[in-house]
Amino acid sequence: MTDLWYSEYHAADVRFSIKVTRQLCSEQTPFQKIDFFESETFGTFFTIDGLVMATQKDEFAYHDMIAHVPFAVHPAVRRVLIIGGGDGGTAREVCRYPGVEHVDLVDIDERVVRLCQQYLPQTASVLDSDPRVHLHFEDGLQFVGRAEEGMYDLVLVDSTDPVGPGEGLFTHAFYQNCHRALTEDGILINQHESPYYPIYAHEMLRAHAKIRATFPIARVYEFHMPTYPSGHWLFGFASKRYDPVADFRPERWNALGLKTRYYNTDLHTAAFALPTYVKELLEHGA
Amino acid sequence: MTDLWYSEYHAADVRFSIKVTRQLCSEQTPFQKIDFFESETFGTFFTIDGLVMATQKDEFAYHDMIAHVPFAVHPAVRRVLIIGGGDGGTAREVCRYPGVEHVDLVDIDERVVRLCQQYLPQTASVLDSDPRVHLHFEDGLQFVGRAEEGMYDLVLVDSTDPVGPGEGLFTHAFYQNCHRALTEDGILINQHESPYYPIYAHEMLRAHAKIRATFPIARVYEFHMPTYPSGHWLFGFASKRYDPVADFRPERWNALGLKTRYYNTDLHTAAFALPTYVKELLEHGA
Repeated sequence: MTDLWYSEYHAADVRFSIKVTRQLCSEQTPFQKIDFFESETFGTFFTIDGLVMATQKDEFAYHDMIAHVPFAVHPAVRRVLIIGGGDGGTAREVCRYPGVEHVDLVDIDERVVRLCQQYLPQTASVLDSDPRVHLHFEDGLQFVGRAEEGMYDLVLVDSTDPVGPGEGLFTHAFYQNCHRALTEDGILINQHESPYYPIYAHEMLRAHAKIRATFPIARVYEFHMPTYPSGHWLFGFASKRYDPVADFRPERWNALGLKTRYYNTDLHTAAFALPTYVKELLEHGA
Repeated sequence: MTDLWYSEYHAADVRFSIKVTRQLCSEQTPFQKIDFFESETFGTFFTIDGLVMATQKDEFAYHDMIAHVPFAVHPAVRRVLIIGGGDGGTAREVCRYPGVEHVDLVDIDERVVRLCQQYLPQTASVLDSDPRVHLHFEDGLQFVGRAEEGMYDLVLVDSTDPVGPGEGLFTHAFYQNCHRALTEDGILINQHESPYYPIYAHEMLRAHAKIRATFPIARVYEFHMPTYPSGHWLFGFASKRYDPVADFRPERWNALGLKTRYYNTDLHTAAFALPTYVKELLEHGA
């Protein structure tokens, strides 16, 4: 029996490994290296430049938390911009809202989308089945730089870590462009890294400082994502008008009758209650 | 340079590894195998039968959440029973409350205490410095079976997983004895395993069914514990009278002025808001 292990280093001296039943594909694109694997515990999963992006077992936690939190706050999301998110999981959750009219999904690397359509239909199937979704294969920073003012009610930054092609998505210019592209009551959600291992905590603080300098409301919420480093992962909620807790309308969201496996309206408010050390990091830095 | 790695299997095909700068000790006791290691990222950590028990880096999360949650609910904890917890971290947090008069700590294996006193004073130092702490090296099930009725305001079950010496601490008889040993407004907190990997979720459900059959109030709360399997860990809160949210008194706890790194009163209520799949598991089983 083949003894094949995928390993990811969460720190130089910390390693997370998954036994692979087989590798489904491995492709070096102009932007990054993409690998798909099969495993018993996690089902199909894929990595970009050696980091787990999504697994069949727990992608629902990430995609629930990036999408449903802003929809339970904003009263009428019609136009959505997804930056990154080529696996389609975020778009899938967004498309469950009947009020959504238009979704622009901008991923720099078409191969992420195509390979997910082939190997991970659980996340990607919405990308060619829902006519509201418009795919754009280009740099997210450039796309949002060209976007008209006030075009989107919601921008979801579903990016890789800020190395390689994801780097421009963690800059001042990017957040300022997002601010401009959002309506007056628009919401930005961004992949906010993790407070636990030093390299991730460092990026968390850099992102937070920039978002806080750009948006009047900038909060952070947490969730459990076991296949990401430490399992303790964060999203940022930034907005010109809405506070994610004070302006949260659980009755309205519950009335939609959406079935979710991770998100629920009790968890919504709870996710913004952070451990003391995380609050202190965000307030005072490392 | 020595390339030495500690590995723990979170499932048969999932492995978490820590690079070890050196092994501090390795001892087979009549009950279990205890190993202490040093590492860069986690500092000193120890394992029992190959499973991480506590690391210098993140033991604070576990010990904050097992201890402070019940103290922020119960108005006057005077007598505490800790079952397991030989590393002393739980006792350390309990002893920060001036109202506590007596703490019985019952660990079947004296060597856990002695080795933690030697190698992990961060958790163990309270065990010989606070006269309120009374150590008992015997089986927890037998100890609590002999305890007088209504002896304790608080029982904290800080056990290993339900294999080997920890097994008796996950039985009906044990929970019934805890119920008897508690005052009429007493609280039981138990190590409640994890919902993510199947073997842990199985034990979570077994424990929950038994506690629910024993106590009128039986709730579950979660926290991030990155060095435990999946990082998504649970405690159970069981009581004859107090609901952990309805009877929670944040002002009273905050007035104590305790400085904590993980627990805070916003997080208290939040921790009881569970992801939908965890709620469904607890309500309906696997």
